[in-house]
Amino acid sequence: MSTDAQDWFSSAIGALADQQGQRVWSVIISFLGDMAQGEGAGISSAALTRVITPLGIKPEAIRVALHRLRKDGWTESERRGRGSVHFLTPHGRAQSALVTPRIYCRTACTTPEWHVLIAGTPSGLELLDALSDQSQDSLIRVNRHTGLAPGPAPGQMAEMLVLDANVAEVPDWLRSQLYPQTLHHGCAALDAALQPLGAPPALDPLRRACLRTLIVHRWRRIVLRHPYLPERFHPEGWAGESCRQKVFALLDALPQPSLTELEQADPLPMMDVTPH
Amino acid sequence: MSTDAQDWFSSAIGALADQQGQRVWSVIISFLGDMAQGEGAGISSAALTRVITPLGIKPEAIRVALHRLRKDGWTESERRGRGSVHFLTPHGRAQSALVTPRIYCRTACTTPEWHVLIAGTPSGLELLDALSDQSQDSLIRVNRHTGLAPGPAPGQMAEMLVLDANVAEVPDWLRSQLYPQTLHHGCAALDAALQPLGAPPALDPLRRACLRTLIVHRWRRIVLRHPYLPERFHPEGWAGESCRQKVFALLDALPQPSLTELEQADPLPMMDVTPH
Repeated sequence: MSTDAQDWFSSAIGALADQQGQRVWSVIISFLGDMAQGEGAGISSAALTRVITPLGIKPEAIRVALHRLRKDGWTESERRGRGSVHFLTPHGRAQSALVTPRIYCRTACTTPEWHVLIAGTPSGLELLDALSDQSQDSLIRVNRHTGLAPGPAPGQMAEMLVLDANVAEVPDWLRSQLYPQTLHHGCAALDAALQPLGAPPALDPLRRACLRTLIVHRWRRIVLRHPYLPERFHPEGWAGESCRQKVFALLDALPQPSLTELEQADPLPMMDVTPH
Repeated sequence: MSTDAQDWFSSAIGALADQQGQRVWSVIISFLGDMAQGEGAGISSAALTRVITPLGIKPEAIRVALHRLRKDGWTESERRGRGSVHFLTPHGRAQSALVTPRIYCRTACTTPEWHVLIAGTPSGLELLDALSDQSQDSLIRVNRHTGLAPGPAPGQMAEMLVLDANVAEVPDWLRSQLYPQTLHHGCAALDAALQPLGAPPALDPLRRACLRTLIVHRWRRIVLRHPYLPERFHPEGWAGESCRQKVFALLDALPQPSLTELEQADPLPMMDVTPH
């Protein structure tokens, strides 16, 4: 690997490393979701450690996070030789599959057809709660009594006023409610961090895995915190679409390594390991 | 006039006379709106008394009601000879004109196109209040934050989520909210009272005026207490459309007399004057 490539990698990691402290279990979920979501796809403790220690995560923190993920039913581990191999559980795979289309969606939302559900009874409100808990995009809550959902109105929906709707005007209060200030700033910060990186040089599988994990992790924390809505819902200056372009330009230039490549890789030299 | 016609008139008055006690000022407004809404159209105290005493209203109550209507700016009076002539004021005419299309609308609502306004700020709520106060049909309040209005969405509507909408499903709670039990029963009672009357015989101008006033008055109290909405919004057993048919069949068979005819008419004989 050229010194230029090593330098580019180090500065990319430095630029993208999460300022606000990263949750290690969440980084591991980002990695597994990106590279080991299939049934039977697992990674050894040693290989996982090689992939994510360059993000400034200590091996001990990885052990603690894996313990927590097992306890919460997200992963399961199998002893193999001197170490363990970690897999998503069926529950973990299902949760991961639920958000994968949203995380890896390359196109801006242009849904033209919506429907509105308006509740007026306690059981109607419970149904709205259930629908909005199900996924952030299946029902966008406008207020306690009202939800907006993509597509045409369902055939049967007891206890609700149901309207097929086209959005004519979006007010600022709704924009700020759907895209809170912290999300807005977080997205602008990621966009600014991605801006100077440019096209990556050729990188080995381990560095690609490390950088993909970091990019997916950062993007996931933006994209899963707001609903999938057309541009007219976006607050002024919203960097989400510009961010999306940059994220997928990078991921496309950093092809997914195989798990075998990661198992066989040598650890990165120390100089690469500490974020700036 | 035949005895049959006199009998028919007496039983029609008896059947339609308001059980719950009628507000005299409101009966007078019904009369003026029906027969003296034009600029310069007025009626003398004597003629008005001839028209509405058959409804069981005492001349003294008419004097009190006319005093109240003047005080509230609905009517003005002019001395002429030994008596007074009463007119709607410009304000009274405007108020009357506002509800005339709704009272005299012969067709059920079939509006296919609606729009929804959803407020999320105090000034948005104030705007909703202002729109729903303006008239019962310009904005149908679904809940505090939400209004449904006929026609396509207006071009500009600050601080509101505005949606063009087609109604897909109407829940029972909204039906009961828009058509409360007392209105539902009142409408069924009027429908039942109209049912046995059949086609009226030929009646003189005074009896026609008296009966038109009573019919318009009863219908007005039904029709102005619910919004103009398509059948899917009606509660089960809603008699409004059946009532509407009967009201206009009767009004068509009781042609509007001229004010001159009413001024020149002799009072009805006493036997007609007391409701059963």
